[in-house]
Amino acid sequence: MKGIIVKQTETGNCLEYQDVPAPHLESSDLLIEVMASGVNRTDLMTRNRQAGYADGPVPTEVERVELGVEISGVVVQIGDAVTDFSVGDHVMGLVDGGGYAEYARMPASRAMHIPEGLEFTDAAAIPEVFLTAYQNLFWHGQLSEGKTVLIHAGASGVGTAAIQLVKQVPNTTVIVTAGSQEKLTFCQSLGADVLINYKEENFTERVLEATEGRGADIIMDFVGASYWSRNLESIAVEGRWLLIGALGGSLVPEVQLFDLMKKFVTLTGTLLTPRTAEYKARLSHEFLARFGQAFTDGQLRPVVDQVFDLSEAEAAQQRMKDNLNTGKILLTNRSV
Amino acid sequence: MKGIIVKQTETGNCLEYQDVPAPHLESSDLLIEVMASGVNRTDLMTRNRQAGYADGPVPTEVERVELGVEISGVVVQIGDAVTDFSVGDHVMGLVDGGGYAEYARMPASRAMHIPEGLEFTDAAAIPEVFLTAYQNLFWHGQLSEGKTVLIHAGASGVGTAAIQLVKQVPNTTVIVTAGSQEKLTFCQSLGADVLINYKEENFTERVLEATEGRGADIIMDFVGASYWSRNLESIAVEGRWLLIGALGGSLVPEVQLFDLMKKFVTLTGTLLTPRTAEYKARLSHEFLARFGQAFTDGQLRPVVDQVFDLSEAEAAQQRMKDNLNTGKILLTNRSV
Repeated sequence: MKGIIVKQTETGNCLEYQDVPAPHLESSDLLIEVMASGVNRTDLMTRNRQAGYADGPVPTEVERVELGVEISGVVVQIGDAVTDFSVGDHVMGLVDGGGYAEYARMPASRAMHIPEGLEFTDAAAIPEVFLTAYQNLFWHGQLSEGKTVLIHAGASGVGTAAIQLVKQVPNTTVIVTAGSQEKLTFCQSLGADVLINYKEENFTERVLEATEGRGADIIMDFVGASYWSRNLESIAVEGRWLLIGALGGSLVPEVQLFDLMKKFVTLTGTLLTPRTAEYKARLSHEFLARFGQAFTDGQLRPVVDQVFDLSEAEAAQQRMKDNLNTGKILLTNRSV
Repeated sequence: MKGIIVKQTETGNCLEYQDVPAPHLESSDLLIEVMASGVNRTDLMTRNRQAGYADGPVPTEVERVELGVEISGVVVQIGDAVTDFSVGDHVMGLVDGGGYAEYARMPASRAMHIPEGLEFTDAAAIPEVFLTAYQNLFWHGQLSEGKTVLIHAGASGVGTAAIQLVKQVPNTTVIVTAGSQEKLTFCQSLGADVLINYKEENFTERVLEATEGRGADIIMDFVGASYWSRNLESIAVEGRWLLIGALGGSLVPEVQLFDLMKKFVTLTGTLLTPRTAEYKARLSHEFLARFGQAFTDGQLRPVVDQVFDLSEAEAAQQRMKDNLNTGKILLTNRSV
């Protein structure tokens, strides 16, 4: 089969489309013919072996497909222990790497039947971003009626999913930041209530203004260090601060713990990719049960930015690195 | 009536026992003849007007009793709107300052009937430390069967309460740190499983050893900055880190957010004294309903270090400042 491998070079690395070995199937796995695969920041981190994603020395060459944490496709083989899926089923879900390929292995415990009415490209745009937004908003953020949520990078994949999920809860207010009017307008079309261009405005001032000085109950923070002080000023008493990325750096030069104590802040650092199989299974099931129908009904929609051919994975990742996307960047197989 | 006021002097301040005005009663309040009052670190902070407790300029003199956040005593008067307490009831609970006095005002919504069999001095040793431990362990820490809890300052008021509350949950492991063998032995008598003398041992090594490298599921952190890195190394994946004091400083010179993200850590900064009346009422009711009987049965016991006469409040606070206490330091009225 064909797939993308990371080729280490003297100056860095590149992605190569080539023949690779088919994945090995365990008895609890599904073998999926991949129809579409999502591009995620975690792939960029894995590729460059950044801390927290893949520890250890940089290998000189990788011969197996390791990039790609979510796919949609057709079940072509099932492990001996699998009972709840059949060959031919259309599924979507998280994989433990290997999504940038013609075939991929997915533990059946976390596979989700594709909601009726969705294309494979819609479906591949769901798992990583909606599950990330779901675990953060509902499990860690304790989102409930009437809450105000500040979502940084509102036009990102997770951002567009989070805006929609928050607005499924009555009387919530969504405040988003983004770097262009175009992105903000798109966020508004998804339901965002307050739009902040971070390049032109001080987001803290706008958040306090929009909440009558109270601040946001929940912050979805993809930025980290460079926004630390401003997030702290923007959060409400008893606020829940969800730290899920560090696009603005990971090292905060000075933290006053008393600032967190005074406001009774709960700060949760979390990632999805390194979670256990059990966690991913539980999250996938709960999410699909609660919101699967909402996709069919059109209340929730996967946001697809651009679809690249699998062989163009390098260009697809470059688009993400350049922050050009609104919603998900996907890869499809030439054969599809 | 008599009470303790903070007298500002040119070099600092001192506590004076003198005639003070009686508290003003609102319709939802109880007037309590104070039998005993707890000394807490929050009193030391209030006295010195430290950030987070009492903002604004240092007044030159304070003519009303402001110290003292918990008392036990007898109801001598009830507000017009109070229905669930009567004159003569024996109660304990949190007050909004004013506990270092002969009489104090307590909102009826948070008053707790003293569990049968307890003396007033036992009862005054319960509210602040047991409610603090309860909110942290059960509300923020999500304590459940089989968890391992690291409690710093195990012999402190909150520490001794926390050890006992954790051990009410089956199959839990309590690891404590303290600065002397005597304190550690006392912690053991309350149920602590692993004893660490922080002056002689590296607590991180001992915690990892005791948990087969997994780390503690919950950390009760009264120390803050000086333990930051060691707590981070000592916490388990998905651990809950409860920051409730900063005896070791509040300013952490460098925080790597990725360290929190990699381990999926939830850090909650919290204090009890500045919480809302509604919060204190809910906490007091829930705690008493769940654990009130356990005091009568002897499964839980208030730990009293030493009882001072109200007029000796200065000496009582000094004992706390010097970290000499094991359990609670109390004040009683001469007239009792």
